[in-house]
Amino acid sequence: MKDAQLRTISKVNIEVLKDFCSNALVKLGVPKESADIVSDHLVWADLMGISSHGVTRLGIYVKRIQAGLTNARPNIHIIRETPSMAILDGDNGLGQVVGVKAVELAIEKASKVGVGVVGVRHTTHFGCAGYYALKAIEKDMIGVVMSNAPSTMAPWGARVPYLGTNPIAFGVPTKEFPPILLDMATSIVARGKIILAAKEGKTIPEGWAVDPEGEFTTDPESALKGAVLPFGGPKGSGIALMIDIFSGILSGAEFGSHIGSLYDDFSKPQNVGNFIIVFNIESFCPVNEFKERIELMRREIKGLPKAKGVDEILLPGELEFRRYIENKKNGIQLSPEVIKELKEIGEELSLTFHLEGES
Amino acid sequence: MKDAQLRTISKVNIEVLKDFCSNALVKLGVPKESADIVSDHLVWADLMGISSHGVTRLGIYVKRIQAGLTNARPNIHIIRETPSMAILDGDNGLGQVVGVKAVELAIEKASKVGVGVVGVRHTTHFGCAGYYALKAIEKDMIGVVMSNAPSTMAPWGARVPYLGTNPIAFGVPTKEFPPILLDMATSIVARGKIILAAKEGKTIPEGWAVDPEGEFTTDPESALKGAVLPFGGPKGSGIALMIDIFSGILSGAEFGSHIGSLYDDFSKPQNVGNFIIVFNIESFCPVNEFKERIELMRREIKGLPKAKGVDEILLPGELEFRRYIENKKNGIQLSPEVIKELKEIGEELSLTFHLEGES
Repeated sequence: MKDAQLRTISKVNIEVLKDFCSNALVKLGVPKESADIVSDHLVWADLMGISSHGVTRLGIYVKRIQAGLTNARPNIHIIRETPSMAILDGDNGLGQVVGVKAVELAIEKASKVGVGVVGVRHTTHFGCAGYYALKAIEKDMIGVVMSNAPSTMAPWGARVPYLGTNPIAFGVPTKEFPPILLDMATSIVARGKIILAAKEGKTIPEGWAVDPEGEFTTDPESALKGAVLPFGGPKGSGIALMIDIFSGILSGAEFGSHIGSLYDDFSKPQNVGNFIIVFNIESFCPVNEFKERIELMRREIKGLPKAKGVDEILLPGELEFRRYIENKKNGIQLSPEVIKELKEIGEELSLTFHLEGES
Repeated sequence: MKDAQLRTISKVNIEVLKDFCSNALVKLGVPKESADIVSDHLVWADLMGISSHGVTRLGIYVKRIQAGLTNARPNIHIIRETPSMAILDGDNGLGQVVGVKAVELAIEKASKVGVGVVGVRHTTHFGCAGYYALKAIEKDMIGVVMSNAPSTMAPWGARVPYLGTNPIAFGVPTKEFPPILLDMATSIVARGKIILAAKEGKTIPEGWAVDPEGEFTTDPESALKGAVLPFGGPKGSGIALMIDIFSGILSGAEFGSHIGSLYDDFSKPQNVGNFIIVFNIESFCPVNEFKERIELMRREIKGLPKAKGVDEILLPGELEFRRYIENKKNGIQLSPEVIKELKEIGEELSLTFHLEGES
């Protein structure tokens, strides 16, 4: 029965899924245009195969709007501004709505003076950083997008969480599809993978996390009580710290352990911070020349002798865009758990979530 | 005898060392002001304990000027410019001279419009990225400094070098000394450490490098014939790639394996590229507020429960600035090999390099 459901939804439901997510938010008072941005983002993440940031997030967004912690109709406004930068106050709006406004503002500034920087305060979970970098790519610009996040990661040398798994994305336009899109958390591994291992009773590789005593652990239960670790040791920890300094401290949002948890803290808005930098390639060099050079680099890298056990050398984002094409054609595969979540949201908001073939 | 030399030079010779380096370059036609920049940089690196980028580099700089590959009197000029960005052509000048001009230009732009970005082409080995980030710190600005480098590192999935160990530095001003200065190569480890292990007949940890067949090796000799690996696996590899896209492709310098080797390629100038971003804090938020928040973050991080075996949680740059203070007081320790190098340069250029106590 599960398999039948999976197959059914896999076939067709991208538009149905988008409409459902959008309608759910509209029911809560979110303007249609804003709701469409969030639903486009969530479905995009699922299409890219980043299901941890896909429609499975709709439920918590709904809950936080209902709790009055996320603002359905925020007054997103500029606090400070120069020709090349701005500080944007997201008024606790949905992270995707604020994020798209922020990257559009950065693009506008970059198109005028070559570089546009927007720091964002008072925002909430914004999903995949790469989504916003892609907006810059579409304008033949390079986008760098960062966000801080609730505390789950121990800085190098510590044994308890302080930093978030602060993501950073770099988007680079190319002559040929796909663009180069590096979208990464600064933890070794997503916390979700540790939760999954715990559920399945498996061990985790050493080096992923520490237990509450600060010792490396392969027991996922101990790991979840301890902290995940930054990628790349002290270097990755330093990069996560810098993302927090830009997104939190420089942008005037919260930082470190002061950021509100998305799932566990219903006492206050999150006050997440973002930091976006957009470079207008045409200001630096002719766009065509840039793209020709990128293609040369891509051909050269993909043609290098491969390491043992490697079938193909992949550039950042290549795998995700391949999944995107495939899922766009064949439909998104949603797990039974996610389908259940969506049906529950539908029931609560008096919206039907139909799988194809269901009546 | 070696120990006596070390002790002697340790005591006094910071100014002597600076003058010697500067005079050597002046002998080759480098203007005094430019020579002073390079010598200040080299001695700073030694003071910070980053001896791999200290006065030991003088010899190769001298050789490349003598070979006509590095330009003693470059015409450093702006190719493109907007209020917030510029492309600077270094005319194959000494990397430090070009780098300081570039960061000063970025600072000037940031002070006017909040953000200043400078891409550099036709430059040469510029030493420590952190040195330039510190120039931004001194103006209460945040500096991000990147450079590409000759090919020694395999991109993720490859078994031969293509990327350099492309460094990136982030400099953040603080209320109290020391500032936060993250200055890192994007390789797991400096190639110099593998060379040292080979000299000493030691093995290297698995994961540092691959042999020419692309397999992890603990044999330093095989590693040197293979390639060093990026820090943090595919994520670090992606960051190294992005640094090359900014420094090489966007700035109009060489990239990937096209960059000339500092030591091994005397057929052409290096054509290294740099990329510098400076953020004027005052444009984003009041500087005092920024610094208070940074101090709070620092206190909180340093006060976290420590991981097993960790004596103190260190912020990026903390250890280096501690060494700086110590070396400034006690003098720099130079190895007998470096002293020999400097004496040889002195002989060739008819300059005496006196250790204290020598006649």
